[in-house]
Amino acid sequence: MHHAVDFIQDLAVIMLLAGIVTVIFNRFRQPVVLGYIVAGVIIGPYTPPFALIHDEKTINILAELGVVFLMFSLGLEFSLRKLARVGVTAVVAALTEIVLMLWIGFEIGRFFGWKPMDSLFLGAMLAISSTTIIVKALDELGLKRERFAQLIFGVLIVEDILAIGMIALLSGIAISGSVDAGEATFTLGRLLLFMIVSLVTGILLVPRALAYVAKFKSDEMLLVTVLGLCFGFCLLVIKLGYSVALGAFLIGAIMAEARQLHTIERLIGPLRDMFSAIFFVTIGLLLDPNVIVNYLWPIAVITVAVVVGKVVSCGLGSFLSGQDGRTSMRVGMGLSQIGEFSFIIAALGLSLKVTSDFLYPVAVAVSVITTLLTPYLIRGADPFTLWLGRMMPGRIRYVLGQYTQWLQSIRLSGDGAALMGFVRRIALHVAVNLAMVAAVFLGGAFFFGRLAELMSPWVSDTSLQSAVVWGGALLLSLPFLVAVYRKLKSLSLLLVELSVPASLGGRYTLHVRRVVAEILPLAGMVGVMLIVAALSASILPSTEMLVLTGVGAVVLAVLLRSWFVRMHAKLQIALKETLEHQHDAQGGGGQH
Amino acid sequence: MHHAVDFIQDLAVIMLLAGIVTVIFNRFRQPVVLGYIVAGVIIGPYTPPFALIHDEKTINILAELGVVFLMFSLGLEFSLRKLARVGVTAVVAALTEIVLMLWIGFEIGRFFGWKPMDSLFLGAMLAISSTTIIVKALDELGLKRERFAQLIFGVLIVEDILAIGMIALLSGIAISGSVDAGEATFTLGRLLLFMIVSLVTGILLVPRALAYVAKFKSDEMLLVTVLGLCFGFCLLVIKLGYSVALGAFLIGAIMAEARQLHTIERLIGPLRDMFSAIFFVTIGLLLDPNVIVNYLWPIAVITVAVVVGKVVSCGLGSFLSGQDGRTSMRVGMGLSQIGEFSFIIAALGLSLKVTSDFLYPVAVAVSVITTLLTPYLIRGADPFTLWLGRMMPGRIRYVLGQYTQWLQSIRLSGDGAALMGFVRRIALHVAVNLAMVAAVFLGGAFFFGRLAELMSPWVSDTSLQSAVVWGGALLLSLPFLVAVYRKLKSLSLLLVELSVPASLGGRYTLHVRRVVAEILPLAGMVGVMLIVAALSASILPSTEMLVLTGVGAVVLAVLLRSWFVRMHAKLQIALKETLEHQHDAQGGGGQH
Repeated sequence: MHHAVDFIQDLAVIMLLAGIVTVIFNRFRQPVVLGYIVAGVIIGPYTPPFALIHDEKTINILAELGVVFLMFSLGLEFSLRKLARVGVTAVVAALTEIVLMLWIGFEIGRFFGWKPMDSLFLGAMLAISSTTIIVKALDELGLKRERFAQLIFGVLIVEDILAIGMIALLSGIAISGSVDAGEATFTLGRLLLFMIVSLVTGILLVPRALAYVAKFKSDEMLLVTVLGLCFGFCLLVIKLGYSVALGAFLIGAIMAEARQLHTIERLIGPLRDMFSAIFFVTIGLLLDPNVIVNYLWPIAVITVAVVVGKVVSCGLGSFLSGQDGRTSMRVGMGLSQIGEFSFIIAALGLSLKVTSDFLYPVAVAVSVITTLLTPYLIRGADPFTLWLGRMMPGRIRYVLGQYTQWLQSIRLSGDGAALMGFVRRIALHVAVNLAMVAAVFLGGAFFFGRLAELMSPWVSDTSLQSAVVWGGALLLSLPFLVAVYRKLKSLSLLLVELSVPASLGGRYTLHVRRVVAEILPLAGMVGVMLIVAALSASILPSTEMLVLTGVGAVVLAVLLRSWFVRMHAKLQIALKETLEHQHDAQGGGGQH
Repeated sequence: MHHAVDFIQDLAVIMLLAGIVTVIFNRFRQPVVLGYIVAGVIIGPYTPPFALIHDEKTINILAELGVVFLMFSLGLEFSLRKLARVGVTAVVAALTEIVLMLWIGFEIGRFFGWKPMDSLFLGAMLAISSTTIIVKALDELGLKRERFAQLIFGVLIVEDILAIGMIALLSGIAISGSVDAGEATFTLGRLLLFMIVSLVTGILLVPRALAYVAKFKSDEMLLVTVLGLCFGFCLLVIKLGYSVALGAFLIGAIMAEARQLHTIERLIGPLRDMFSAIFFVTIGLLLDPNVIVNYLWPIAVITVAVVVGKVVSCGLGSFLSGQDGRTSMRVGMGLSQIGEFSFIIAALGLSLKVTSDFLYPVAVAVSVITTLLTPYLIRGADPFTLWLGRMMPGRIRYVLGQYTQWLQSIRLSGDGAALMGFVRRIALHVAVNLAMVAAVFLGGAFFFGRLAELMSPWVSDTSLQSAVVWGGALLLSLPFLVAVYRKLKSLSLLLVELSVPASLGGRYTLHVRRVVAEILPLAGMVGVMLIVAALSASILPSTEMLVLTGVGAVVLAVLLRSWFVRMHAKLQIALKETLEHQHDAQGGGGQH
């Protein structure tokens, strides 16, 4: 009964102090997160009275759970539909921000003579804004439903995805010690592939499993299932070499498509609040005030760079993608702070032992200052826009106005827009199906060793084994390949219709059209198979075997064509249904 | 980022398997708790494939959190008002059950030749029924609102309190190795005192603090505050040498009087479900199927003893306290199983290293079997009562009927009932105030060392120091002493009125009455001060000092009498208000 006294004491100290400090912070209308960090500093070893934490290992593990639940909650709020609605602006603004801030951060680090790796991590820390703090600030100012707030959320979603890519890249760079363009492309490609495949298969399987469990009308069972799937997926992601943050975010995004979303959010809320409090407190624990005093100058420079850099980059990004000046300024001002992602990246650097100790407290200090500024910046956006409008030379104002008009003019409408929409949809379908194909072959290559071992009692020849695995992968991916072929065919039919005008071809037009429409998709399939061969190079069977399996596959595809089409259509409909459902009511969903 | 992989893996395995097994168990309408235990057995080291848990220490700590949250939730459901409503029956039935089952358990242990300590712990394990399992079973059978269910809940509440006393006693016995009647009385007295004092001061302070935090309308802040208070109080309780289970239950019972009860229950629910799942799974982890096979015979005997013993003892207890035969049988049948408390007591024995290893799996096996029987027993209560009625000899039926009639006849009504109610209320007030006085003096004795150290720069003489501390304690307890005196006086006035009839005393009656009414409370106060002196023996100052402080206190009490009375009335009103408020609506209470 008594072996956990140390731990209970730690929890008591953390929660009591966090409670008191956050009440004080809330009284003065400051974000709760700051309260947690301050509580951590008070508890921490660098400030009097003394180090109040005894079982540091367990507390760190619980803080890790805080990251899991934070990212899982972010994932739950992620929505493919929401993203599609503010797509262009969000992507442009997020990309501008990340590229610019990465560069500014890196340059600042170099300016102060820090190590390249420190500078790189500094850039990554400055690149991402803080969802938690923005949501809190907009909530408190009562601006959550405004249009610019919707844009900000869009930017945040894109940032979350890019941040996760960045974490994967940084881990790679930290381990290999260098940036290799090919390596980076491969890492990002593998990450993208993994994300697409897990989203598609996850959205096909997980909401169905949750709907089944929800039928028992027990909050407890639903929670245990959600936690099991969450931690199980995180484990899979870790085993594949990605961070637990990515896993939690992805499984959250998958569960966001479940009908029980609101119930899940209600159940996960307290867990997230408890563990994220521990996470933020442990950030404060690591904060050495001496470091802040010693690095006062860099902190000041970085803070200015974050505010100015983010206002400029996000504002510019929004404006370039067609928003008016006032909205762009509000978006820029809203996003000008750093937060939880910066801590996660700083913690990553520390745990990989590639960054210096001072980076963490510097990031925390900058986050604290920029967080404090956020509400004032949001409130100051409109007056600043007015002032800027008055101070701006007429010439520049004219150019900006012209740009907005030009953007309006090149926007497609009517038939053109419908056509673009059609082409875009086909391209998306092809991409998703290709991702599934690639995943099947990569999976085959990945698990080849284990599969070969299983086969060895029956098939001992290695080349035969690889032929079996490769053929199996081909068989598995046939439905997707058939779908790709059909999509390519309808796309090429459309393209041919548009590009080979009837007036030119005369009476051969129909023939020419048909031939081109047949050749284009076949050429595409050959390209696809070449890529597949490259991806599965390690398990590619000998040439004769390859030809044999290839011919077999083609025969099978032609014979079972309609069955494959039907199966694929079923999968597609299931996916569509899940994506287009309604969520359950806020409060409902289960009893005890 | 990667140091918690082991732990994430453990959580993933536990939650995934718990989810799957509970779904299967729920499908066949068996309690979820059993599913957890089975999942634990599958994961555990005694069954194939192999031990799936890596970071055992952390999992055990989380299981401990499960106990905290389970007991805290039980405390939240505890209610002084509910207890008062079914008071007599609940107390009689619970006492009959605990005494009989302790004895049966001990005798069974001795019969099988087990160590005395094993036998004692076995008795304790069999004594308490399982709230979780009963609530689930009644819920599923749709009988939760019936009268006998209310009685069962009353019995469970009394059992919870007695169980906590039992845990304290068992710890004491396990450490000292023997049962000393005086020691046991002192332990129980100290425990009762601690419970009363923390309930009174807690109900005065905690609901007010929670109401203040709730004003910020943030679920997160309320949760952190609740957790801070919960773990903080648990820590205090541990430091005083009690179990964390007692602390969690008491702080839960205190928070049950907060207006935010329903919000707290909603926030704590997921935490309890997650950690109690881990707790029950770890129970399964410890279960060695070989032990069960080896102890098949004791398990069978104990199972029969639990079912028969509990039906008889609880049924008899209910019947003796005036319930009809059918209700008594239903109460008995409902309570005939063991559960979470048995595991807590078994874990206590293991952690104190006083019980043998086989006791734990035996308790789990008996719990599993009796849990499986519970729904059938509840459903079978009515048919069994009918059958028993038919089989019972007419003579016995006549005696039982007479007993029920006799109970009805001796029940007070009208003036008598009102008078008894009045006397009971005064006795309760006196007891609570005396508990506060005793706590102040015991606290003074407990902290004397530290207080003396603080005083040493100004007061170096030890006897003077003890005089200051003792005097301070007297000053602090004066409001309560004044209240006790006033209550005793009104009680003695009433008693004198009744016992010295006007017809006897003639014209002196009034004088006699007044003298007796003055002497009785003074004699009571002398008795109180003697007890106080005994309690604070270690810091009792020299006789002259004692007389001096005593006289000073009396002078002060007489001079400031009305101020003390007013202050005490304020406290009393505050306590009453808190106890008589309404709870918030189920779903409401905060936003994010």
